[in-house]
Amino acid sequence: MRNWLLLACGLALIACAPTDTDTPAATATSSGAAANANPLPSWNDGPSRSAILDFVQRTTTPGSPDFIPVAERIATFDNDGCLWSEQPAYFQLAFAIDRSKMLAAHNPELAQNPVLEALASGDEQALAGITEHDLVELVAATHSGMTLEEFQDVVANWFAVARHPRFNVPYSQLIYQPMLELLDYLRANEFKTFIVSGGGVDFLRVFAEQAYGIPPEQVVGSMGDTEFEIRDGKPVLIKQPGINFVDDKEGKPVGIARFIGRRPVFAFGNSDGDLQMLQYTAGGDGARFMGYVHHDDAEREWAYDRGSHIGGLDKGLDEALERGWTVVSMKDEWAKIYPGEGLP
Amino acid sequence: MRNWLLLACGLALIACAPTDTDTPAATATSSGAAANANPLPSWNDGPSRSAILDFVQRTTTPGSPDFIPVAERIATFDNDGCLWSEQPAYFQLAFAIDRSKMLAAHNPELAQNPVLEALASGDEQALAGITEHDLVELVAATHSGMTLEEFQDVVANWFAVARHPRFNVPYSQLIYQPMLELLDYLRANEFKTFIVSGGGVDFLRVFAEQAYGIPPEQVVGSMGDTEFEIRDGKPVLIKQPGINFVDDKEGKPVGIARFIGRRPVFAFGNSDGDLQMLQYTAGGDGARFMGYVHHDDAEREWAYDRGSHIGGLDKGLDEALERGWTVVSMKDEWAKIYPGEGLP
Repeated sequence: MRNWLLLACGLALIACAPTDTDTPAATATSSGAAANANPLPSWNDGPSRSAILDFVQRTTTPGSPDFIPVAERIATFDNDGCLWSEQPAYFQLAFAIDRSKMLAAHNPELAQNPVLEALASGDEQALAGITEHDLVELVAATHSGMTLEEFQDVVANWFAVARHPRFNVPYSQLIYQPMLELLDYLRANEFKTFIVSGGGVDFLRVFAEQAYGIPPEQVVGSMGDTEFEIRDGKPVLIKQPGINFVDDKEGKPVGIARFIGRRPVFAFGNSDGDLQMLQYTAGGDGARFMGYVHHDDAEREWAYDRGSHIGGLDKGLDEALERGWTVVSMKDEWAKIYPGEGLP
Repeated sequence: MRNWLLLACGLALIACAPTDTDTPAATATSSGAAANANPLPSWNDGPSRSAILDFVQRTTTPGSPDFIPVAERIATFDNDGCLWSEQPAYFQLAFAIDRSKMLAAHNPELAQNPVLEALASGDEQALAGITEHDLVELVAATHSGMTLEEFQDVVANWFAVARHPRFNVPYSQLIYQPMLELLDYLRANEFKTFIVSGGGVDFLRVFAEQAYGIPPEQVVGSMGDTEFEIRDGKPVLIKQPGINFVDDKEGKPVGIARFIGRRPVFAFGNSDGDLQMLQYTAGGDGARFMGYVHHDDAEREWAYDRGSHIGGLDKGLDEALERGWTVVSMKDEWAKIYPGEGLP
């Protein structure tokens, strides 16, 4: 996939349309006091809710043998399939496809690039093999030469206008209500919440604060190269076509060490790409919580695990069952999936 | 400098002595309320103190035209020469020298490496050309193969036993009292304080929290490569000999974009290595504060600026004077340099 990306670099951005700075749909998050008074209201009584409440209780009660000092209460979350949906394709891939179409419409040469063409056509065969890494590469390549702020305006604009094909709502509404409550509950108990995602960090940071209450400086993700430049007298950061870091699989503990500098005590994922993050979390001393969101609700969301090319959960599911990690059944344990009215 | 480092890689760590987990000397930092009731007590009345108080007042008063929302109150500080002293050599270089001696004492082959030999001898000629980048390379090379936690134990042990040659106190005591007060004052006004240093991040994170109240996840620095591995059944991160990122000069705005994801509104440095961070900060919209600590106190600390091979301030001084950035005279504006009793 690298060759066409190199080709695409030279063509990219010629047709960069003006954008506005609309931000994604706001999401109400409850206050700390409310989160503690009635924790996790969208979680049905069951093993996962109990395990979370028990862990937080044990680790935040002074004098408890499992007490964790506030400074060490680091909680890390995968994003795609863990905090929001990832079907029928990673949402950042939907962005990349829409963006490719727009760029191709203004640039006939680019329109003939076979991979962008396939992406723009939505061809299932072309989409099936695309990983989060490919995606970050694609976005890096087609957006090189822009300033960071210009790129984030493009992303914000996409969030404002794009609609999910199944639910016909902005992608930012397809975040999981139970996970929002979990983030709130942890923060109310002085855990610091981070995203550690294979997705592109510059993309994630556009919506993570408003969607999840997680500020840019607590978002770890894959990233392209960036260079500092004085452009038209203004100091700016310019996105480059190269990939600097892939925050997936073994990259997740590495990203955690680089960006956070502490081993988490609490980690949530949903795929084999999160396994090393959960292993690394489990490997520290003292009380630990490792959880997987298990996609087993084809009716309200999607059902997939072993062998899925998006969000595949195979080794991770074995290891979770073997080691007694928490595996959340969306079907049985989540009373509600999404926060918005009219959504499941 | 790369060749001998490559040679050294193979030899390193054979003689890694056992360490304890002592942490650097504690530093009292005042509470938020106290910081606001009597701000910056070790700063003499003068242009720098006034500029800081004025900036914070203007940007935190609701309704002020310069008001900055809490989420955007990002303040970044260089470390060497800005938060603590950096003479007669970067303190991390003192660590590297002490460490080289210890490694060489247990490893005759390593002892014959000419550069480690020169370092161990303290030869001025050998030391003069060493940059923060070289230093990070040296430390990465001589500590590759260790886990991150093992390395940080080594550093913590060094802080517990090493003494500064001029003041004969632990290096962690040579932090600037006025800057501690500034950090406190900013935090009391809901600024989030970050270190953005050319020094090695794994070294910095050992003492930054205790010394400055800045947690690991708010420390940006240079870094070596790291790899995830299951070692003896335990998931760990192993330090590698290669350099991943140099957080100096043009690297500082890049590091800020990667790790923080927001343009700072307040930045402090002391050398030309900080100029791009200050330019990047100045380049945003709205109220901004850019400051340089100016080392002009040979009696209580050190006096150096243009042409100094450590902490050289040349272009940065010109630009600061031209653009009206704050230049702090340590001699005239700081009533006290270090927090400890018996120190200036």
